[in-house]
Amino acid sequence: MMKNNLKTVPLKHVRLGNGLLGRKNELIRREVLPYQWKALNNDIPGADQSNAVENFRIAAGESQGEFAGLVFQDSDLYKWLEATAYSLATHPEKKLEDLSDNVIDLIEKAQQPDGYLNTYFTIAEPEKRWTNLAECHELYCAGHLIEAAVAYYQATGKRKLLDIAVRLADHIDGKFGPDPGKLRGYPGHQEIELALVKLFEVTGDDKYIRLARYFLEERGREPHYFDLEWEKRGRTGFWPSSGTEPDRGKEYFQAHKPVLEQETAVGHAVRALYMYSAMADMAAYVLAETGDRSWVAACRRLWENVTGKQLYITGGVGADAYSEAFTFDYDLPDDTAYTETCAAIALVFFAWRMLQLQPAAEYADVMEKALYNGILSGIAEDGKSFFYVNPLAVHPETCAKRYDHRHVKTVRQKWFGCACCPPNLARLFASIGGYIYLYNNERIYINLYTNNTARCRIKDREVTLTQKTNYPWEEKVRIEISSPEATRFTLALRLPGWCKRPAVSVNGEEIALAGIMENGYALIGREWKNGDTVELTLAMPVEKMAAHPGVKENAGKIALQRGPVVYCLEEVDNGANLHNLVISTETGFTTEFAEDFPGKVVVIKGEAFRTVETGWENELYRPLSRQREKVGIKAVPYYTWGNRSPGEMRVWIRALDRE
Amino acid sequence: MMKNNLKTVPLKHVRLGNGLLGRKNELIRREVLPYQWKALNNDIPGADQSNAVENFRIAAGESQGEFAGLVFQDSDLYKWLEATAYSLATHPEKKLEDLSDNVIDLIEKAQQPDGYLNTYFTIAEPEKRWTNLAECHELYCAGHLIEAAVAYYQATGKRKLLDIAVRLADHIDGKFGPDPGKLRGYPGHQEIELALVKLFEVTGDDKYIRLARYFLEERGREPHYFDLEWEKRGRTGFWPSSGTEPDRGKEYFQAHKPVLEQETAVGHAVRALYMYSAMADMAAYVLAETGDRSWVAACRRLWENVTGKQLYITGGVGADAYSEAFTFDYDLPDDTAYTETCAAIALVFFAWRMLQLQPAAEYADVMEKALYNGILSGIAEDGKSFFYVNPLAVHPETCAKRYDHRHVKTVRQKWFGCACCPPNLARLFASIGGYIYLYNNERIYINLYTNNTARCRIKDREVTLTQKTNYPWEEKVRIEISSPEATRFTLALRLPGWCKRPAVSVNGEEIALAGIMENGYALIGREWKNGDTVELTLAMPVEKMAAHPGVKENAGKIALQRGPVVYCLEEVDNGANLHNLVISTETGFTTEFAEDFPGKVVVIKGEAFRTVETGWENELYRPLSRQREKVGIKAVPYYTWGNRSPGEMRVWIRALDRE
Repeated sequence: MMKNNLKTVPLKHVRLGNGLLGRKNELIRREVLPYQWKALNNDIPGADQSNAVENFRIAAGESQGEFAGLVFQDSDLYKWLEATAYSLATHPEKKLEDLSDNVIDLIEKAQQPDGYLNTYFTIAEPEKRWTNLAECHELYCAGHLIEAAVAYYQATGKRKLLDIAVRLADHIDGKFGPDPGKLRGYPGHQEIELALVKLFEVTGDDKYIRLARYFLEERGREPHYFDLEWEKRGRTGFWPSSGTEPDRGKEYFQAHKPVLEQETAVGHAVRALYMYSAMADMAAYVLAETGDRSWVAACRRLWENVTGKQLYITGGVGADAYSEAFTFDYDLPDDTAYTETCAAIALVFFAWRMLQLQPAAEYADVMEKALYNGILSGIAEDGKSFFYVNPLAVHPETCAKRYDHRHVKTVRQKWFGCACCPPNLARLFASIGGYIYLYNNERIYINLYTNNTARCRIKDREVTLTQKTNYPWEEKVRIEISSPEATRFTLALRLPGWCKRPAVSVNGEEIALAGIMENGYALIGREWKNGDTVELTLAMPVEKMAAHPGVKENAGKIALQRGPVVYCLEEVDNGANLHNLVISTETGFTTEFAEDFPGKVVVIKGEAFRTVETGWENELYRPLSRQREKVGIKAVPYYTWGNRSPGEMRVWIRALDRE
Repeated sequence: MMKNNLKTVPLKHVRLGNGLLGRKNELIRREVLPYQWKALNNDIPGADQSNAVENFRIAAGESQGEFAGLVFQDSDLYKWLEATAYSLATHPEKKLEDLSDNVIDLIEKAQQPDGYLNTYFTIAEPEKRWTNLAECHELYCAGHLIEAAVAYYQATGKRKLLDIAVRLADHIDGKFGPDPGKLRGYPGHQEIELALVKLFEVTGDDKYIRLARYFLEERGREPHYFDLEWEKRGRTGFWPSSGTEPDRGKEYFQAHKPVLEQETAVGHAVRALYMYSAMADMAAYVLAETGDRSWVAACRRLWENVTGKQLYITGGVGADAYSEAFTFDYDLPDDTAYTETCAAIALVFFAWRMLQLQPAAEYADVMEKALYNGILSGIAEDGKSFFYVNPLAVHPETCAKRYDHRHVKTVRQKWFGCACCPPNLARLFASIGGYIYLYNNERIYINLYTNNTARCRIKDREVTLTQKTNYPWEEKVRIEISSPEATRFTLALRLPGWCKRPAVSVNGEEIALAGIMENGYALIGREWKNGDTVELTLAMPVEKMAAHPGVKENAGKIALQRGPVVYCLEEVDNGANLHNLVISTETGFTTEFAEDFPGKVVVIKGEAFRTVETGWENELYRPLSRQREKVGIKAVPYYTWGNRSPGEMRVWIRALDRE
């Protein structure tokens, strides 16, 4: 099998500059990776305990004790290792590499002679291996090990972790599949599917992609494997409250029907989007191999449902806290949203693969929307605290006192008992340079705009692109091409969907966009010479965004957006009771770089009306006699909320408009 | 001890006519009591099973089998019997009385020789009597038996059930109290306190009111009895998921602090309001006895919190489904509201006792608000299906698919596993005639307006009042006084708080209200002669009501109210996506009696704007360019919702207003 011919620029060939993405990348390297290493070693005072490293020591025979943490605790270490690998790829550092090598030695010791690797089952219940795929995440953890191994091999050239991963993958391949004597199982939490695709890509061994395809194709077949194993276990579950997991219904696991027949996004959002990502990988291979478009069609259907019907304006997904799940079309409540950081990250993985399958600006638009909003909100400006849940409206007393808001934390947490999100943030931003370009011999697609210099070979000639910009805060992006020899290729510039009046000039001369657009990319084909310069102007006025009329929660409300950045109001700037602010639909706004704010961000200022709150005494209801006063408001980028003082926040603001 | 000197008119002396309350009273007698008797005998096809009567047969030794239903299932039969007693008081009927006598015989047989009476413990766990007051509702069930017994005695003069109640109360009095050797317990679900007050009033035996006072005063003292019994049981709970009840915190039971120190309504709403009702009873006795106003003050404080900060416009209370509980000031979400029918009924009990403590129109206003809105909504027009939860906004797909809306049923149910609400509705409306008047030798207070004729003795003279009105649909109320001899007394007419321009005439002559108002009542003192007539005109324009600015959910919204009746929009009249309707704050409305509607009700018609829903395709967000079309809307009384076809409903509608 082979995938389509678009290549990514290896991480080591992309040097991020001092843009927002570059600074977040640097934050990961400087602050987050060391901090998370401490967290994984139970070394953050007052934070939830991880025990992830200690579990490996125990499984390796280097320490005594009992397994602690969640059954999928191993994955936190693997994700940290993957993030570390990306960091080493761009910024080699002996101390960090030595530390990683030591961790890899430890992992190797924890691996069993038959290739099996999972500290929970090795320490606590060795006899129960592979007996509870629905709940116990063995394949999920294996997937994260494989992803880490591929990244570490690509970053350092060292094979040890890759060999560990291969032994584990071979062990799994020996256990699962349609052949007689194998278990016809598939993971309760998808992840290994996309990891196996990566393992195939780096090893060239077909069996891994066959196994990934088996896991995808087996899913949702009847009789349901999760029911079979449940019966085989004597109807017992892993969690104290289970048998519950099977009771949530197969939709929770996206195992309710065969994956190619699935039409809407259902169930646990991270599970779903990891699966759709793997499906998009598979779609590319199947298409290249046989011309069969059924995988592409399934991915496109699910993409349209997710992004056209179930996506928050912040790029968050998962409207229900129970099951951390998708719900139904247009169900997008702001204050009870789950919008897990991991789910928005998983959406980027899906978008990125859809983009590789068929470059179209809409995929990069969604990627960018999630990155600058619902993902970045997951991490504090100092990199040392995190949101798991990223709601679009927060009222602290409600979160403290209402049971149906109990999942919403109003301040970022140092760590979590279930700490999937922080290391997921780390691995995404450590590798963010890899999402900017896609290329082949004819074209270079630029998907994201941010300060960086990237190097690639086209027609055996080295081409270097340098982006100079203060995007997403300023609208100019200058792209300098440097190439020792003039080279003919097409520069495909994504013109973001949010930009109504983009302008492009080449060497100072504006070019007409009509006629050169393809799927949202402006195609500029020419023989590029050293020193050629392209300048994009992506006009970014403050837009008052409205939601689709199907979205009950946002009827009559607007959200402020500028460029790809969604804004919010915070209590610290605008006082409490943000629900009493109402913005005229005809109000104009000014923007400025904030002085009193952590990070160099553009804030929005304008006027609004505020309902007068006095004069009510003990009345709760009375005939309408609205009194409002004019007030100034200040909106800040959504992702920055909660970095100053705790308080209310809201993205969607009531709109006052004329008849 | 003695209570204040205001008397109620015995039920048998109030004859309800063909008004809304009279028709609901008749519905209870004709349809609901027979229907509920069937339900209690598992005789409604397709409904949840009750088993309440069968449990008594088993406990009485007349049948074999196991207890079935909830641990407080007995209370359903007791509440039915209480409702039946009220029905017999106004409409004696031999067949129903014979049936009731048979039920009473059965209850007598189920009573144990020591006076104990509870079918669950008698059948299932006799050794565990009184070991789990927090969870097991023995005192709650006893309270409902006592209330039924008092009602049956008053209706029929028969003592058998009263004797059963006295034996049970004496048994309880022997078990609980501050004396050595007694348990210092109090109920997990308040109810017996107000029942014991009634038992005292009918028997004259002080010990019952002392016991009620003990239960109230012991509550919230440390060490907490629920903790002590929890330890004594070896930390085991009754419910499959418990020890959970103790984990909800003492607030759930209003046992977090002594009752006289409680300042805000917290915890389970029905528990709270039954307790406040008993406190108001006690306040009257304590005040009369000693002049001590501390009970009055505590009641007033809790009243102000409930009605000034935590009351829905429908008279519903209890904003959180979890724990069926009060939450915090101004937390009044419409679609996730719990607003249990029983809680609104309990609010009427509280209001009624506050009114007796100190006549003031605000108490009757709340009583009326609950009756005509959040209580009546609990029962279908045909009396054969019921709402337990009465939300102010319903979107059926959301209720079906969101876990945090799972408590909201979008159609009334035939019966419930936990069937507290239907028989509570029955006993309230069967006795509704008793809430209209309060009187003593100097005054007759008229609290509610509805067609009826009532007879009372003032200064040993018989006075009959006849109300002729089509209230709450029409604004005129004609009151005819008939008295064989001219009698001097003050007619105290409640002028509802919702009415801005009330007018009163006596024998055709309008009287000036300034100077004769006291706590919202117009006091008309004179020597009343046979044939005197008073006419009230309570102007009831359609009001656009606004909520206090603290209520997040209703910012920018209005609710339509006419007189005491709150209106709602239903999908059947206005199409789906009710959130896309917006009413101009300057729109006028017309009213008319509906032809196409079950029951003779006034509906409201007017104009609104509807967001155009087409033209979006797969977009979810785009810059605002609002398109609206003018549409006609029709609003129906909230309590009638869900009687035609299932669909969306909402009380609070977005308001479009000018700057």
